[in-house]
Amino acid sequence: MDYIDKVSHHFSKFPGIGPRQAKRFVYFLLHQDKEYIDTLLDSITDLRNHVRLCTRSWQHFYARNPSETLSPIERDPNRDQTQLLIVERDSDLEAIEKSGVYHGLYFVLGGTQPILEESPKVRLAPLQKRLESDPELQEVILATSLTPDGERTHDYIKEQILPITTKKRITLSTLGRGLSTGTELEYIDRATMASALSTRHTA
Amino acid sequence: MDYIDKVSHHFSKFPGIGPRQAKRFVYFLLHQDKEYIDTLLDSITDLRNHVRLCTRSWQHFYARNPSETLSPIERDPNRDQTQLLIVERDSDLEAIEKSGVYHGLYFVLGGTQPILEESPKVRLAPLQKRLESDPELQEVILATSLTPDGERTHDYIKEQILPITTKKRITLSTLGRGLSTGTELEYIDRATMASALSTRHTA
Amino acid sequence: MDYIDKVSHHFSKFPGIGPRQAKRFVYFLLHQDKEYIDTLLDSITDLRNHVRLCTRSWQHFYARNPSETLSPIERDPNRDQTQLLIVERDSDLEAIEKSGVYHGLYFVLGGTQPILEESPKVRLAPLQKRLESDPELQEVILATSLTPDGERTHDYIKEQILPITTKKRITLSTLGRGLSTGTELEYIDRATMASALSTRHTA
Amino acid sequence: MDYIDKVSHHFSKFPGIGPRQAKRFVYFLLHQDKEYIDTLLDSITDLRNHVRLCTRSWQHFYARNPSETLSPIERDPNRDQTQLLIVERDSDLEAIEKSGVYHGLYFVLGGTQPILEESPKVRLAPLQKRLESDPELQEVILATSLTPDGERTHDYIKEQILPITTKKRITLSTLGRGLSTGTELEYIDRATMASALSTRHTA
Repeated sequence: MDYIDKVSHHFSKFPGIGPRQAKRFVYFLLHQDKEYIDTLLDSITDLRNHVRLCTRSWQHFYARNPSETLSPIERDPNRDQTQLLIVERDSDLEAIEKSGVYHGLYFVLGGTQPILEESPKVRLAPLQKRLESDPELQEVILATSLTPDGERTHDYIKEQILPITTKKRITLSTLGRGLSTGTELEYIDRATMASALSTRHTA
Repeated sequence: MDYIDKVSHHFSKFPGIGPRQAKRFVYFLLHQDKEYIDTLLDSITDLRNHVRLCTRSWQHFYARNPSETLSPIERDPNRDQTQLLIVERDSDLEAIEKSGVYHGLYFVLGGTQPILEESPKVRLAPLQKRLESDPELQEVILATSLTPDGERTHDYIKEQILPITTKKRITLSTLGRGLSTGTELEYIDRATMASALSTRHTA
Repeated sequence: MDYIDKVSHHFSKFPGIGPRQAKRFVYFLLHQDKEYIDTLLDSITDLRNHVRLCTRSWQHFYARNPSETLSPIERDPNRDQTQLLIVERDSDLEAIEKSGVYHGLYFVLGGTQPILEESPKVRLAPLQKRLESDPELQEVILATSLTPDGERTHDYIKEQILPITTKKRITLSTLGRGLSTGTELEYIDRATMASALSTRHTA
Repeated sequence: MDYIDKVSHHFSKFPGIGPRQAKRFVYFLLHQDKEYIDTLLDSITDLRNHVRLCTRSWQHFYARNPSETLSPIERDPNRDQTQLLIVERDSDLEAIEKSGVYHGLYFVLGGTQPILEESPKVRLAPLQKRLESDPELQEVILATSLTPDGERTHDYIKEQILPITTKKRITLSTLGRGLSTGTELEYIDRATMASALSTRHTA
């Protein structure tokens, strides 16, 4: 039954997928009609051939032709060119776009900075280069997750870019803290309560 | 084996405890020495005899003698008498006290207001009476959880006390929203992102 | 970001995969080198082109050339041709093969019979045809799961094939019950305990 | 708020209960009427005063007066005095009694034998004494769980009592293996499949 093992071996590398579920995926595919499998294969092939990295924001985007090097957001003249929001991953960028409340530009770090690691494991040099060369930038917003990995990356990036933002008089800011959807007061921590209290507003 | 069923029947009413775990509790007690059981019984008896409701904040508190009617927080002259923070439950109050960032007084609603329910299922009349009669109050802070139950209770209480706070020129406020500990940007919703962006601050 | 939605839409049909994890799969693929994606595509294409259903056991198998219509097990002269074990799915067959304790042939029903459903949703007609036409068969073993779905399918199949097995004097049997790996006596049910007790053996 | 901490400290020793749920238990008790708390206290006190260990089966039982030393099962002349079933815990005994399929006597080991432990951590000496002295015994059934702890205890007890059962010509048996309620064929292991196949019976 090696043909099942072969495909399930590939699926078992998918995030969060163990050997058991990988095998279920293969059995699932076995029971689909060939049309479904063909459109699945076509869509992955399409992804492989047309998705590339934006050379300014480092966001993945779908390039209709080989000459495109900037993502649609970077090419959009209606976006606020004075704001740059720094995120860990493409998926963060996508969630923020879906919220529809931010209208500036982005920079995708490509991950988080590991603990006890001096050399950058995120896209630090491209970020520094962009900050140095962009003439319109007035504010950089650090938008990392409030997790240990995200907070460490926040502090690392802040330390590395502060000389540039200071020199160029670019504001360096951080997203505000407070209650977020789902927060139960019973489990609130000191930092969140302090922020929620200090940013309280008319009910 | 009815003696096991009898005790486990009581334990099965504990929050989150099904019949299986209730029975495990009984077997656990069977294997403890009599000393542990005696201190457990004593501490519950103590709770039964000495804990009462504060007549101003409706917080449960331990009364050393029968004449005490106010909780330690209500009796503390160092607490800010101009602020009143409204919480759903004693456990919320305790978490906020543990954070150490709030120094005013409290009012405990005793639960949440159910959906499609007109008549108050929380302590509305005592709250209104307190707001009416308290001469020092300058701000009331609604501190319900950011859950469907909490938000509904927030809006219900706001509607019910707004005439009083307006008449007495008491500020009615709500805790600020934003990223809270553990928030991953990838899963952020519109309301949280909008608040986090508008309350951003120097990194 | 429609290209992500397109691929993740396909992944979200995989068993146990919601829209969130489907999107994670796409981001995972975006970060792989083209080589990994190519071997993944090749292995799925291979599955699509070479896997077919055995015309006797209805097991999926890998056919090296278009003329193969029987699975390796069906073609193997060393398998016991007098025993036929009926399973719900290919994955059950594979688990039993891995155990190495059964040496007869198989029939794959292709699923379970839904509740309150009269017309067969499993491969009943092919099974009946096989039982009618196979001259060597001496025993049919029902090997469905001990779940509500499996037990219902067991009873449905038994009812439908009993006239044939009776007529042809084929033994119709069921796997034995008892303790299985992981069984805790504390949670044992009557049927399992009764079987475990009646099949007890020298320690 | 030390009175809450005091009671929740005791509850946090209950099996499976962390500090958070222990505190919830206290808040739950705070909201009950005094009657519920009184019956809870009474039932625990009753447990404390009247439950004792049977001197033959080592089962916990409710003794109506101080002279009772044998459990109701041991005193019951209708139980089969020739069979003794050895279980790990009272909860196992209770589950088996609830199944209603066993009519002999019991011996409760009081736990499992830890790995790499030579000296008995279960009631070995009382068991050996019983086997030596009981004139009616014809069969001893080992009924430990099919978990690593249970199997190790099974083998340990078997080794320790085999000289006695051999000498006295008492049959030493083990519960049968097979499919148990909930078993999915897809996840079956070799030992379970082998037993299920060898104890198969007419459908």
